[in-house]
Amino acid sequence: MQKLAIGIDIGGTNISYGVVTEDGIVKLKESFPIKEFKKVTHFVDYLSERINHSLAGLSTEFQLMGVGIGTPNGNYYKGTIEHAPNLNWKGVVPLADILSKKTNLPVRLTNDANAAAMGEMIYGSAKNLKNFLMVTLGTGLGSGFVANGKMILGHDGFAGELGHTIFDPNGRQCNCGRKGCLETYASASGIVRTVKELLTESDEPSVLRDVALEKISSEMIYKASLEADPIAKKAFDFTAYVLGVMLANAVAITSPEVIFLFGGLANAGDRIFKPVKKYMEKYLLNIYKGKVELKPSALSENDAAILGAAALVWNNGDC
Amino acid sequence: MQKLAIGIDIGGTNISYGVVTEDGIVKLKESFPIKEFKKVTHFVDYLSERINHSLAGLSTEFQLMGVGIGTPNGNYYKGTIEHAPNLNWKGVVPLADILSKKTNLPVRLTNDANAAAMGEMIYGSAKNLKNFLMVTLGTGLGSGFVANGKMILGHDGFAGELGHTIFDPNGRQCNCGRKGCLETYASASGIVRTVKELLTESDEPSVLRDVALEKISSEMIYKASLEADPIAKKAFDFTAYVLGVMLANAVAITSPEVIFLFGGLANAGDRIFKPVKKYMEKYLLNIYKGKVELKPSALSENDAAILGAAALVWNNGDC
Repeated sequence: MQKLAIGIDIGGTNISYGVVTEDGIVKLKESFPIKEFKKVTHFVDYLSERINHSLAGLSTEFQLMGVGIGTPNGNYYKGTIEHAPNLNWKGVVPLADILSKKTNLPVRLTNDANAAAMGEMIYGSAKNLKNFLMVTLGTGLGSGFVANGKMILGHDGFAGELGHTIFDPNGRQCNCGRKGCLETYASASGIVRTVKELLTESDEPSVLRDVALEKISSEMIYKASLEADPIAKKAFDFTAYVLGVMLANAVAITSPEVIFLFGGLANAGDRIFKPVKKYMEKYLLNIYKGKVELKPSALSENDAAILGAAALVWNNGDC
Repeated sequence: MQKLAIGIDIGGTNISYGVVTEDGIVKLKESFPIKEFKKVTHFVDYLSERINHSLAGLSTEFQLMGVGIGTPNGNYYKGTIEHAPNLNWKGVVPLADILSKKTNLPVRLTNDANAAAMGEMIYGSAKNLKNFLMVTLGTGLGSGFVANGKMILGHDGFAGELGHTIFDPNGRQCNCGRKGCLETYASASGIVRTVKELLTESDEPSVLRDVALEKISSEMIYKASLEADPIAKKAFDFTAYVLGVMLANAVAITSPEVIFLFGGLANAGDRIFKPVKKYMEKYLLNIYKGKVELKPSALSENDAAILGAAALVWNNGDC
């Protein structure tokens, strides 16, 4: 009998879930918009119905081991989503409890970057690593730190907010209310801010001048950089500088063997990996120089979030 | 039969060792200068002779469980001291091996700030804490991070260099060769640098103007601050600001329940604790605000290093 887990990825726009084997094969998956569910109980009713429907279609015999959820502002200790700014459900939502009662299955939940780290540890390139760091470069910057083979969750379950370490206390305004957070520089939205600054501060030619300021995207910047656009190149260099300094600081705390870069900006490949590596090495304390690998995730971006969530089921509480 | 451990504290000037009970009582201790031992083997010969002499004087029956060592640049995994700039012994010194062969006892070794954290965990105020941070404010700034009840050692044994996280990439020159490291601001030597800058940059009156610049010490600054000396007060405030920002960054990575401040500057009590707490709270991400306690160590400064080293023996490899 095949053992299966459900992995659920909650995002600001869509919810995806998948049925995952122990080897990390996503047997089937489905996605639907989240905005219409004003109440979390409606969402849970709909989700469990969809999951039952999916499972009914499986032709093999199976045993369902549990459900894992990766979500913004997820708290592993409590199984709650707490004050997620981009979700309809306000306050503290005990999602793991509600879903567990509905499905009679064990449900584990953690924040999305921690889930990505778990996915890499169970299914990806971090299988034999006891000390690593997962950095997700999306609209913001998420992170999951693993030390001594375990996720660092902190005493409150909210550890691992590298995106909100402060690069410059007088720097860019962050959504969190403070200034100069790493994610205001090193993220899809951060590099767009950098380009806007560069375009207004200089007269350098750039294809990005032909685009309305508010329409500029990180993808456009990446494409422009491939054409050696000077503004786009400077933006990647500055992004990499800030990320390199702050990764060097993170290394001085947990000394990971590998740092994985994942998502959005990480898809720019050498354009981002090479300068980040260069600046990180430059700003690393001597004892760490040349010791920390910077790597892309081994998981496909399509499946990673579902695999990461499902990983919570297999790792037996070692999150 | 009483179980005992030997705790050894290696410093740049002196070596102290003590015979420690499981309850953390230092039964006897001794200290001698380190500089005369050009070769580590001479040091080990002398040390084991002194230890045997101490033990021979004990009136009770005892069982010696092992030796713990706290040292600058100590590597727990390898039992080595590696490239310690302030010691006579250059390169990689396999001290744990050498001492273990000489004494036929298990020997564990780690860096001094990690030993301080272990001491707090076994004997002090961190007994029931699974997630905390120990910051030692001496000439430099050392740190030991504990997460999930274990020391974060990193993949290479060198994790926990908070003093070398960069506050300002264009800031003060650090002994490590880089610029703007936290310890160039928040340490005994850092606050002295701050006062020298303030004295030369302003005309404000200060009793510290009566002292030759090169003679100013952190103790003098503390005493002046008690008399409301404006330069001394500003120096404490700036030191606390930099430390507060960088502690807020460290919290965003490991989310500790308590941060302990220990040694030198920490002895300034409210003069340093109050403003550090104020700035840390100001620069903490919302989800952490009001959750992190800032506390002095519960161990006496005299015994702490020996207790911390001895703690390595009792904690059964859970370092």
